[in-house]
Amino acid sequence: MSGQDNEGFSGGEDTAVGGIAADRLRSIIERVERLEEERKALAGDIKDIFTEAKSAGFDVKVIRQIIRLRKQEPSEVEEQETLLDIYRRALGM
Amino acid sequence: MSGQDNEGFSGGEDTAVGGIAADRLRSIIERVERLEEERKALAGDIKDIFTEAKSAGFDVKVIRQIIRLRKQEPSEVEEQETLLDIYRRALGM
Amino acid sequence: MSGQDNEGFSGGEDTAVGGIAADRLRSIIERVERLEEERKALAGDIKDIFTEAKSAGFDVKVIRQIIRLRKQEPSEVEEQETLLDIYRRALGM
Amino acid sequence: MSGQDNEGFSGGEDTAVGGIAADRLRSIIERVERLEEERKALAGDIKDIFTEAKSAGFDVKVIRQIIRLRKQEPSEVEEQETLLDIYRRALGM
Repeated sequence: MSGQDNEGFSGGEDTAVGGIAADRLRSIIERVERLEEERKALAGDIKDIFTEAKSAGFDVKVIRQIIRLRKQEPSEVEEQETLLDIYRRALGM
Repeated sequence: MSGQDNEGFSGGEDTAVGGIAADRLRSIIERVERLEEERKALAGDIKDIFTEAKSAGFDVKVIRQIIRLRKQEPSEVEEQETLLDIYRRALGM
Repeated sequence: MSGQDNEGFSGGEDTAVGGIAADRLRSIIERVERLEEERKALAGDIKDIFTEAKSAGFDVKVIRQIIRLRKQEPSEVEEQETLLDIYRRALGM
Repeated sequence: MSGQDNEGFSGGEDTAVGGIAADRLRSIIERVERLEEERKALAGDIKDIFTEAKSAGFDVKVIRQIIRLRKQEPSEVEEQETLLDIYRRALGM
């Protein structure tokens, strides 16, 4: 069966089509498709929250920036903001 | 409270910091962060399935192509494959 | 010749393979490939400048932020920075 | 001057603002911006060619696929197409 490890996948034999473990291939593909569906649904949920935020009067770009900042260490944020200030002043911005 | 619609969000009053509905802002941000965590976890799960596929002897690039094809209408797939053949022959590929 | 407009492309006749204006198709593909090569080269040049910036002691992430800011209107930058401050204070950041 | 190597950059002294080699920083930023402009222009040129291709009756998705195939080794393309056929048959597609 073409060197594919079929253990732990099905109790019985896999349908070998062209030397391929067809059931296993189908299982892999369907699991990926299901997870991709879930990812898409989550992306929709996130979009909905931003729509809610916008209609509540918040600035979505600024909220995204807050989320980015919260992912970083506070000391790292502070250091970069200090540098940003220095560079801006150097450039006369 | 700065014109933000707070209805349906909390029973009590929101903490207004600088005229901002702070609790609502925090709720929005934390919900987005939670969903982003879930998306990241799903991406990891998908990656694991492809790792499994690879060690079972499947070609991951080809599996991805199969998944793309399954998203399209069969008639659309067929039409594009016909055109691809025509273009390749025209180019001597 | 398959309904393709060949005007302004070549003085003579196009090689029709499978009803396809083969020369025109080839010209389109080769022009895209050439432009993609140039884009890739530019991406490499940009990367080199950031490498130079880094070895000159600059913080590349901060330089990227400066470049983003310079693309925006100063009034827009100021407004977003004010909002960012307000949101951060509201969140106790 | 804050450890930044200014050699080979300008004959004279750099304006040190906040300990920063301001001229060098400005030069880096402006060069990146110029290259990014060029990249954007090339992306526009590529888009124009696809618009031309479409109005000449070609299928743009198929042309993109041709371009992808031309980047691969012919033997690699052939191998993947063989596998794609096997997987499709195994899945009854």
